[in-house]
Amino acid sequence: MRYIIFGESHGAGIGVVLEGVPAGLPLDMEFVEQQMRRRAPGRAAFATPRKEADQVTLLSGVWEGKTTGAPLCAVIYNTDTRSKDYSRLKQCPRPSHADFTGNVRYAGYNDYRGGGHFSGRLTAPLVFAGGVAQMLLRQKGIFVGAHIHEIGGVKDDAPLPDQWESALFAPVQEKDFPVFSDLQGEKMQEVILKAKTEQDSVGGVIAAGIFGLPAGYGGPDLRETAEGILARQMFAVPAVKGIEFGAGFGFASLRGSQANDPFYYDEKGNVRTRTNHSGGINGGITNGMPIVFRVAIRPTPSIGKPQETVNFETKTTEMLEIVGRHDPCIVPRAVPVIEAAAALAVCSILEQTQAPVTWEGVEI
Amino acid sequence: MRYIIFGESHGAGIGVVLEGVPAGLPLDMEFVEQQMRRRAPGRAAFATPRKEADQVTLLSGVWEGKTTGAPLCAVIYNTDTRSKDYSRLKQCPRPSHADFTGNVRYAGYNDYRGGGHFSGRLTAPLVFAGGVAQMLLRQKGIFVGAHIHEIGGVKDDAPLPDQWESALFAPVQEKDFPVFSDLQGEKMQEVILKAKTEQDSVGGVIAAGIFGLPAGYGGPDLRETAEGILARQMFAVPAVKGIEFGAGFGFASLRGSQANDPFYYDEKGNVRTRTNHSGGINGGITNGMPIVFRVAIRPTPSIGKPQETVNFETKTTEMLEIVGRHDPCIVPRAVPVIEAAAALAVCSILEQTQAPVTWEGVEI
Amino acid sequence: MRYIIFGESHGAGIGVVLEGVPAGLPLDMEFVEQQMRRRAPGRAAFATPRKEADQVTLLSGVWEGKTTGAPLCAVIYNTDTRSKDYSRLKQCPRPSHADFTGNVRYAGYNDYRGGGHFSGRLTAPLVFAGGVAQMLLRQKGIFVGAHIHEIGGVKDDAPLPDQWESALFAPVQEKDFPVFSDLQGEKMQEVILKAKTEQDSVGGVIAAGIFGLPAGYGGPDLRETAEGILARQMFAVPAVKGIEFGAGFGFASLRGSQANDPFYYDEKGNVRTRTNHSGGINGGITNGMPIVFRVAIRPTPSIGKPQETVNFETKTTEMLEIVGRHDPCIVPRAVPVIEAAAALAVCSILEQTQAPVTWEGVEI
Amino acid sequence: MRYIIFGESHGAGIGVVLEGVPAGLPLDMEFVEQQMRRRAPGRAAFATPRKEADQVTLLSGVWEGKTTGAPLCAVIYNTDTRSKDYSRLKQCPRPSHADFTGNVRYAGYNDYRGGGHFSGRLTAPLVFAGGVAQMLLRQKGIFVGAHIHEIGGVKDDAPLPDQWESALFAPVQEKDFPVFSDLQGEKMQEVILKAKTEQDSVGGVIAAGIFGLPAGYGGPDLRETAEGILARQMFAVPAVKGIEFGAGFGFASLRGSQANDPFYYDEKGNVRTRTNHSGGINGGITNGMPIVFRVAIRPTPSIGKPQETVNFETKTTEMLEIVGRHDPCIVPRAVPVIEAAAALAVCSILEQTQAPVTWEGVEI
Repeated sequence: MRYIIFGESHGAGIGVVLEGVPAGLPLDMEFVEQQMRRRAPGRAAFATPRKEADQVTLLSGVWEGKTTGAPLCAVIYNTDTRSKDYSRLKQCPRPSHADFTGNVRYAGYNDYRGGGHFSGRLTAPLVFAGGVAQMLLRQKGIFVGAHIHEIGGVKDDAPLPDQWESALFAPVQEKDFPVFSDLQGEKMQEVILKAKTEQDSVGGVIAAGIFGLPAGYGGPDLRETAEGILARQMFAVPAVKGIEFGAGFGFASLRGSQANDPFYYDEKGNVRTRTNHSGGINGGITNGMPIVFRVAIRPTPSIGKPQETVNFETKTTEMLEIVGRHDPCIVPRAVPVIEAAAALAVCSILEQTQAPVTWEGVEI
Repeated sequence: MRYIIFGESHGAGIGVVLEGVPAGLPLDMEFVEQQMRRRAPGRAAFATPRKEADQVTLLSGVWEGKTTGAPLCAVIYNTDTRSKDYSRLKQCPRPSHADFTGNVRYAGYNDYRGGGHFSGRLTAPLVFAGGVAQMLLRQKGIFVGAHIHEIGGVKDDAPLPDQWESALFAPVQEKDFPVFSDLQGEKMQEVILKAKTEQDSVGGVIAAGIFGLPAGYGGPDLRETAEGILARQMFAVPAVKGIEFGAGFGFASLRGSQANDPFYYDEKGNVRTRTNHSGGINGGITNGMPIVFRVAIRPTPSIGKPQETVNFETKTTEMLEIVGRHDPCIVPRAVPVIEAAAALAVCSILEQTQAPVTWEGVEI
Repeated sequence: MRYIIFGESHGAGIGVVLEGVPAGLPLDMEFVEQQMRRRAPGRAAFATPRKEADQVTLLSGVWEGKTTGAPLCAVIYNTDTRSKDYSRLKQCPRPSHADFTGNVRYAGYNDYRGGGHFSGRLTAPLVFAGGVAQMLLRQKGIFVGAHIHEIGGVKDDAPLPDQWESALFAPVQEKDFPVFSDLQGEKMQEVILKAKTEQDSVGGVIAAGIFGLPAGYGGPDLRETAEGILARQMFAVPAVKGIEFGAGFGFASLRGSQANDPFYYDEKGNVRTRTNHSGGINGGITNGMPIVFRVAIRPTPSIGKPQETVNFETKTTEMLEIVGRHDPCIVPRAVPVIEAAAALAVCSILEQTQAPVTWEGVEI
Repeated sequence: MRYIIFGESHGAGIGVVLEGVPAGLPLDMEFVEQQMRRRAPGRAAFATPRKEADQVTLLSGVWEGKTTGAPLCAVIYNTDTRSKDYSRLKQCPRPSHADFTGNVRYAGYNDYRGGGHFSGRLTAPLVFAGGVAQMLLRQKGIFVGAHIHEIGGVKDDAPLPDQWESALFAPVQEKDFPVFSDLQGEKMQEVILKAKTEQDSVGGVIAAGIFGLPAGYGGPDLRETAEGILARQMFAVPAVKGIEFGAGFGFASLRGSQANDPFYYDEKGNVRTRTNHSGGINGGITNGMPIVFRVAIRPTPSIGKPQETVNFETKTTEMLEIVGRHDPCIVPRAVPVIEAAAALAVCSILEQTQAPVTWEGVEI
C-alpha cells in the first residue's frame, strides 16, 4: 500500500489516493467515519470551534461496497474556509509553523492560506487511509490502540506496557478524551483550558500499542526495520517531534539486567517475554509481543500571545499576534491520527517482509 | 546514494556497496580510517577486548584516488572469529538480542554465530559509507558532530543546543571518550566499569548536531520529511530505541509560548530563530538552524549475569549465562556510528528534495 | 515526479495525483486541454463515436495559476456511461482484453464495466500528467514529438531519424491524423475504415523523438538506464507491446561498421554523431542526439466479429460478439498519449540522474 | 530481491550484492557456474579469445550451503587485465560505446579502461544473481529458456511460440551455440566468422520464454506491468536496444481478428488461449500462457575497421582503429544473460504483485 495525500487547507479539496489495497475488502464506512469524527474539530471546549464536515467522497477503487484492487481516491471537498484570516502570513511567518520553511522550499509559490498543504487538516485523509488499513489488519487479528500519555506535565494512569493487551484499549477509544483515567483526563483538560485562557497552547505525548502482529516481521536493514518504518510514518504527522519504543529514552538509566526481556514458553507453547522493555521489536523484527511506542507532540504553534517574527517585505523584525480559531492542544484529536498512521506503517512492515519467510512458504 | 550492507559476524567478510556517489570525489582514506578506529573495539577498558583490524579493501568505484561514479564496494575480511563461543545460541536465544526474531524471520537458516548479520560489527561498513557521505557533505560546508549526552543516569555538561555550532564539536571528536566535560566523562566511565565488574551493562543517549544545512530541504510528505529520513536511518543502527528532535519529549511540558522559536534577521540579513526548540526542522523541512537530535541507546543485551530464556530443543525455560567478550556499554563506540548514519541521512534528504526548489532553478 | 492514476471507466471519476512538481510552474491549461482533445474520442470516422468531455477539475497543487509544490490532483468526473453495454463481461472475458487477467488478479472483485481500471479511458489523466511534464520540459528546451509510423502495413513517409529535429514535428502535431505524409495518412485511414466495415480492427507503430535533452542523463544500472525508464513508462500505456530505440530490431541485420554512429565536432564545438542508429542513448546514457524510439500498438481487441471465449458460469467455451462503440484503430488517438508518457519518462530520467554530475556541480 | 552490481573491467574485482533472497534456499553452485560458463568468453572461434576464469567468491548470505536471508555478496576478482590496450580511449571515444556518454555523465572521472563499469564483463555478476533467481523460481515450477532467434539476417528454425513449452528449451540450453536448428546455427556462425575476418561485427535477436508462471501476476499501473518490469531489466543488459512481447511489432500488420487469442478450457478446466500473440500478458498481468519476448542486440561496437571519432585533446575529428580482443558477435554469450535477467525480473513481478491477490489470501 502506497498513498499520496493531496490538497491545501483553502483549496478546492483535500484527499488521498491509496494504491495497493487488496481486492474484495468490505469497506466499513461507518468505522472510517467514526475515526474521522474522533479527529474532527469543533467537538469540545479544548478544540477549535471550526466546523469541518469532513464528508468523504469516494471516486474510485470501491464497487458494490468492496475494494476493486484499483487505487482508491477519497476526496473531502473544502467548504468552511475563511481566507481573510490568513492574509498577513504572506509577509510574516508564524514562529515554529511551516510558513517560513514552506516559503523557502517552494520559493514563495506555496499556498500559505491556513497553512496550505502543511495544515493539520491534511490529517483527515490520513485517517481515512489509516481506516482502510485498520480494516485490513482486523481481518488478520491485528489491532491498534492509543491513549493520551501526557499533556502539559499531567500523565495518564495507564496499565504498565508489560500488561497491555488489545481489549484494554477498546473502551478508551470510545471516549471523547481518550485516557485510561478520567480523573487524570480532567486534570489534563484543566491544563488545556488554562492555556487557552492565556492565549497559549500545550504539548503532550501519545502512547500506542499494536496487538496481534506475529513474530518475524521487519528486518535489520535500512528499508525494513519495524522501528524505522513506524518512525518515518509518525514524522509525517504534523507536530510529532520524537518517537521511542518500549523503554525508549528510559534505557539510558537502566542496566542490561533490568532492561532485557527474559523469554519463557506460555501455556500454548509460544515464546513470550516476561517484560516488554523492547517494545515488541528486536533487531528490527517483531518478537510477537505488543509493539509499544510513544510519540512526542509539540504545543500548537498557533497562539494568541504576541510573538517576535520577521517581515519579508520590510525586512524587519516585528511582533505578531495570531488571530483565528486554533486548538490550544492538538493531542486529543491526534490520537486517532496516530492510530491511523500506525496501521499504515504496519501494512508497510507486512509488505516489506518480502512475502516469504522462507522459499518453502511462498505461495504463487 | 543508496547502500546495501552485507556480511555476517563469522562469515568470510562484511562490507557495503554504495551506489550514487558523485564522480570525482577525492577519497580521504585517512579520514575514513580514523572514523573507523573511533568505532573499533579493543581500545579502552570500557570496551570489548576483541581486536578487529577493520582493514578496508576497496573493490570498485575509486580510481586514481577519486570516485568514478560507479558503485563503491568496500570489504572488511573477517579474521579474528571464535565460533566456539557461540555454539549454544542455536538452542537458547539471548534475551533482547535478535537471536529469537532472526530465527523466526529466517526460519532457522540465519547464521547465528556472533549474531550473524545482526552483529554490531556490521556498523563498521556503515561507518565507511558514512565517511564517504561526510566527505561529500564537507565539500558543501555541512558537518556532523555528536557527543555522549548521558550514560547510566550521568549527563554530559554540554552547551545548550541553542548555542551549538560546528566548531564546538571538533575537539570532542578527537577524544577517546567523546564528551564536552571530561569530569562528567569520568563519572560515566565509572558507571560503565562498575557495571562491567557486576557482569552487567548500561545504556545511554547520544546527542548530535548537523551544521551548515541550508533552509528548504525536506518536505511534509511521507517520503521526504527530514525527521523521518533521519529516524529511519537511525533505527537501522543496532540498539537505537528512540529519537527526538529539538525539545523532543520535553515538548510535553512546554507551553507554545515557551516552545516556539521566534524569528529575527541576523546581521547578514538571514532569517534565524532566537531559540532552536524545533531542532532545525519545521513542517518536515530544514529551517537553516542546526539540526539537533538525540537517540536512545539500550544497554548491551550481552551480559554475564544469569538470565531466563527458552531452549528450542527441550522446549523448556532455563537459565543462560553469556560468556565471551562484550562491551559493557556500546555508547562511546556508537558515537561515530551515529555521525556516519546522520551523514548518510543528510545525503538522502538532499536527494529527496527533488533537485529543483523551483523549476527556474533546474540546471540540466 | 511520481504519479498515481486512479479511476474506473464507469465509476464516479478518473484522475491522477502528481507529486514532486516543482513550485512556480505556470499551468498552461489551454495546452493541456489541447493535448487531451487530441486523445479524446468522437472526433473522426475512424474513432469511436462516444463523446467524452474530459473536463478536468483541479483539486490541489495549483494556486493563482501556478504550481504550489504540493501534489496536484486532477479529476475527470464520469458522465456518459452506459453500464448496460457491459453486463455480459461478467461471465465471458473478451479475448486479449484484461477481463480475464483482471478477474484473476483481483479475484473477481474488479469493476469490469467498460474495462474498469484497464479502460483506455484511463489514458486521459495520463495525458494531463504528461502535459504538466511537457510544460516543465519546455522551460528547459526539451520537446517531444510523435507521428504514426505505420498502420496495418501502411507506413508514413517520414524524414530519416538521422535528420530529425524538433521543428519537423510541430506541424504534424496540429493534424487530426498525425503523419508527415497526408497521402500515406489517407491510405492508413482507408485501412482503418475497411477494418471498421468488417467489424474488425488494426494495429500500428508510433515513432517518437525527444529533442533538446543534453548528453549525460541516465546511467548503466538497473534503476537508471534511459531506455529502461522510457520502456517501463510505455508499457504502462494500454496496447503497447514493444519498444525499440534507434535501429532497434533492425540491428539484427546490420554490421557494426554500418550500425556505429561516428563522432564529429559540429560548428559550435559540440560532439555529435553523423548517424543516429543508437537512438540518442549509449550505455543507458543520453548522448545529446535526439532520442528516437518506436512503440508497437496492438489492434484494438474489441471487435464485432464473433470470437471464441469461455463462460465462467457454464464452464463452457462459446462464441462472443462484442457490441458497443469501439475504435477500429487506437493508434491515432494514442499519439498524444505516447508523447505524454515520453515527457513523464524524461522527467524521471532527469531526476534519476541524481542531481550532481560531479560533486563540484552540486548546488544546495 | 534487489541487487547492486559493482566493479569495473580493470579494477580489483566485479560482483553483486543481492538483497531479499529468502532464507533456506539450497545454493546449487554447480548450476550457477554452468550458467556463468555459458556466458564466459574464450570458448569458441566466434567469441573473444580472452580467458576470464569468472571464479566466484561468496562473502556473505550463505551458510552451510543454504541462504541465510541476509544479503549475498558475490565477488569475481579480476586477474587477466591488460591496461595498456586501452590507453588511447582517454582521448578518443569509441563510436557507439559508452566512452563518450560515460565521460560526460561522470565528468571524466569514470574508469574508462576496458569500458570500466560499462564493460560487458559486468554481465558475469548479473548471471550469478540471475542464477540464484532461477534456483528460487525452479522451486515454484517456473523456468526460463532462450535461444538465438536471428543473427545477421539468418533466423533459427524454431517452434512457433504458440507451441512453446519448457521442455523444448532444455536441449537448446546445453548447446554451445543455443539454437533449435543446428543447420541454421552453422549459417549464423558463418556470418559471424565472415564479419570477424573483415574486422567487423554483427547483431541479432534473442527470443525467450518464461514457463510455469500462473495467471494473475503484474498489474496495469506504472510500477507493476509485467512487460515494464521485464523491459526495464532487459535494458540494463548492455547492447539490448529493443524488446517486444508476443507478436510485438508484427501487430502492426495484423487485424484484431487475427491478433486476438481465443480462450478455451483445457482438459484440466484451466482457462487457456488457442494462440499466444499476447505473449502471455494482458493488461500488464500474466494470463497463464508462456511469456514470450524477443530482444534486439546491437552489433558489438568494438570493431577493427577504421572509424571516425573525435579527439578530446586536439578537438579534432580523426580515424580510430580499435585493437584488442573482442567478440565479433555478442549474441551467443548473451543468451544466458537474457535468461538470468528474465529470472530476476520474474522475481520482481512476483514481489510487485503485493502478496495478496485478495485480502482473504493473505497469510501472516
